Amino acid sequence: MAAFSIHGDIIWTEEPGSFRYAEGGYLTVDEGKIVSVSSDRPADAEVIDMEGRLVFPGLSDLHLHAPQYAFMGLHMDEELLEWLNRHTFPEEAKYRDVAYAEKAYSILADDLLHGATTRVSVFGTIHTDSTLLLMRKLEEAGLAGCVGKVAMDRNSPDILIEDTDESIRETERFVRESSAFRSITPSITPRFVPSCSDRLLRTLGKIASENDLPVQSHLDENLSEISWVQELCPWSENYADVYRAAGLLGRKTIMAHCVWLNDEEMEMLRSTGTFIAHAPSSNRNLSSGIAPMRKYLDFGINAGLSTDVAGGSSISMLRMIEDAIGVSKLLWRSDSSAGRPLTFPEAFYLASKGGGAYFGRTGSFEPGYDADIAVFDDSVIKTVLRPGLSVPERLELLVYRAPESRAEAKFVKGRRIL
Amino acid sequence: MAAFSIHGDIIWTEEPGSFRYAEGGYLTVDEGKIVSVSSDRPADAEVIDMEGRLVFPGLSDLHLHAPQYAFMGLHMDEELLEWLNRHTFPEEAKYRDVAYAEKAYSILADDLLHGATTRVSVFGTIHTDSTLLLMRKLEEAGLAGCVGKVAMDRNSPDILIEDTDESIRETERFVRESSAFRSITPSITPRFVPSCSDRLLRTLGKIASENDLPVQSHLDENLSEISWVQELCPWSENYADVYRAAGLLGRKTIMAHCVWLNDEEMEMLRSTGTFIAHAPSSNRNLSSGIAPMRKYLDFGINAGLSTDVAGGSSISMLRMIEDAIGVSKLLWRSDSSAGRPLTFPEAFYLASKGGGAYFGRTGSFEPGYDADIAVFDDSVIKTVLRPGLSVPERLELLVYRAPESRAEAKFVKGRRIL
Repeated sequence: MAAFSIHGDIIWTEEPGSFRYAEGGYLTVDEGKIVSVSSDRPADAEVIDMEGRLVFPGLSDLHLHAPQYAFMGLHMDEELLEWLNRHTFPEEAKYRDVAYAEKAYSILADDLLHGATTRVSVFGTIHTDSTLLLMRKLEEAGLAGCVGKVAMDRNSPDILIEDTDESIRETERFVRESSAFRSITPSITPRFVPSCSDRLLRTLGKIASENDLPVQSHLDENLSEISWVQELCPWSENYADVYRAAGLLGRKTIMAHCVWLNDEEMEMLRSTGTFIAHAPSSNRNLSSGIAPMRKYLDFGINAGLSTDVAGGSSISMLRMIEDAIGVSKLLWRSDSSAGRPLTFPEAFYLASKGGGAYFGRTGSFEPGYDADIAVFDDSVIKTVLRPGLSVPERLELLVYRAPESRAEAKFVKGRRIL
Repeated sequence: MAAFSIHGDIIWTEEPGSFRYAEGGYLTVDEGKIVSVSSDRPADAEVIDMEGRLVFPGLSDLHLHAPQYAFMGLHMDEELLEWLNRHTFPEEAKYRDVAYAEKAYSILADDLLHGATTRVSVFGTIHTDSTLLLMRKLEEAGLAGCVGKVAMDRNSPDILIEDTDESIRETERFVRESSAFRSITPSITPRFVPSCSDRLLRTLGKIASENDLPVQSHLDENLSEISWVQELCPWSENYADVYRAAGLLGRKTIMAHCVWLNDEEMEMLRSTGTFIAHAPSSNRNLSSGIAPMRKYLDFGINAGLSTDVAGGSSISMLRMIEDAIGVSKLLWRSDSSAGRPLTFPEAFYLASKGGGAYFGRTGSFEPGYDADIAVFDDSVIKTVLRPGLSVPERLELLVYRAPESRAEAKFVKGRRIL
């Protein structure tokens, strides 16, 4: 890949508290990696002119359910377990039909392509072939990340359940057949403890460890769910302990939600390097409660943001930045021990470099980082204050006022995909 | 005005708990009023074909600050009093310049025109001429409602303060000169107790009562604000009592926020018929806390929704429906005594008929109601579930997934304005 340089208003975070930016700067990329941000036009690179546009790192969506995108924004008056049984499971069962999956996943891949997201960690369904098709759709769109065939062998409706051995066999087939993809890798994906027997969880842990694969699941989302896990696994210290015992925690694991972690669970996530996928829109929509992210971050747990389609009701990671700030303010107001609210640069950091760390060196414009880049035209937001706004102010306006905007250009690992 | 009928997918609420709708129905209007919703094409009315579009009542935004629209979505990491002093007051001071106001208010009127809002209760600034210009801009856009010249004679920066007599004189001039407008009426607008001396408040109460004018102000938004009011008015029973003593509560009054009403204040608002403008986006952005709307509604207080531009960060009343539901879920989760969350039809009711009641018979499609109508094309939301979605499901999708969409057509009192 030849070197190129994007000319525009470049902004990123290297640490949580503050932005770096270069108005009218040049972001130079070579061999798929960031080379530099400079105010001078580079002599030896093709320049892509995005003058007056916001140029920021592609964002990482650490948790979403591909088959739920079709009904995202519907039935939002319900709580988690009711919502799963009445709407989610019946809809997911339809993905047995690969033709149905093809239609639905094409819409998802196209909408993801046009947003700010470049990296994803995605749940499919229990259906191996539909999930392989999902990987193909995402790879064809040029996105990068992980996709999992969901495993679930108990407490699930007849239309959406596997026999334990079948679940293991299909997971193994999924891992084998997905080796065909380059930028999308398979992820071991037990749905959550209530849906997975101890034997299934332990076997999945073994598959993940033997193949050095990423893992994704759910943890401590809802109080009823937590009580249920205690009943199902009386031998465990707590919910996180069930995953730990199965060898499913670690630096390559994402646990979605973590609204209600206790001190032991916090320590378990920190010491294993497990990532939290904070899902603020979903926390709100499903009345789950608000994950105390300030506390978790201060404690040193790895974390990023996620849309949690379709507990969350937007596929936009820009909207998740606003939502993460918003719910943190309400949590702080109702419980000051949760710590002060997230600031805008902190939430942006979580959406970019914080969550991006799961995928390696991505989500920042430091030299050597993967060149994941999103370009947005913020001039659609009309205000008499323009010109005269700083680059961080314009980014804040984009997040609050036009989070569903479509990207004007996008790059993943230096390759232009839009 | 000749009778006409809009053909489309018509949906509205008559009471909080449930939708009424007519897929492929005819909404007939005559003399600016709703005549009927029918499944049959009327014989004697021109038909406006909006087949496949969502047709619902125009929404009422009970509280927004016109001069703050320019910086809506900026500086959202601050709380109320800091945010007022650092950003809001300096920006509002600029509206002394009518040319500046002209530019900014033109953008606001245009954006309001293209959303779902048909009625507004708006704060201008202390500047009479700029506020008259704001009324003209809104009237020219075809919108209806009330606009107030803000009164503030204490605890305000030098650049944005009035002498008490000057504030009274200018309010009187504002009322006189705004008689030129037909669909926009003047509203008596003390900013809030900290900014208004007792004498100013009482004189404004007298002007409102003598001229039978609407009134708008702020009440119980933030805990620091409430303590400050107690210091400023040691003679009062509580914050609401200060307005009551000045004769400023009543059926024609809107009090924005009301996050922290105590029992006496609730009774005061109910018994006077005062309307609460619930501002969920602002409650969140300014970390004010969440107004317990379930409790207030059960108690029988009049209420509607509001954007509170620019404490709120969206001008879309569709977005406020989502936000009202969202914050009510989080409040319920943190304090179950606040009552169960608002449902989607309840929040839609608040945005339409609930708040519309402030302006008379508006916000519903019952016969005799003002024909305030919004038409939206929801086909921009792509899902494999379409066709097959009910009209209420499509409205829920619009609210959650495309709340910033632009209206395809809009009518106020039967007149097409878009």
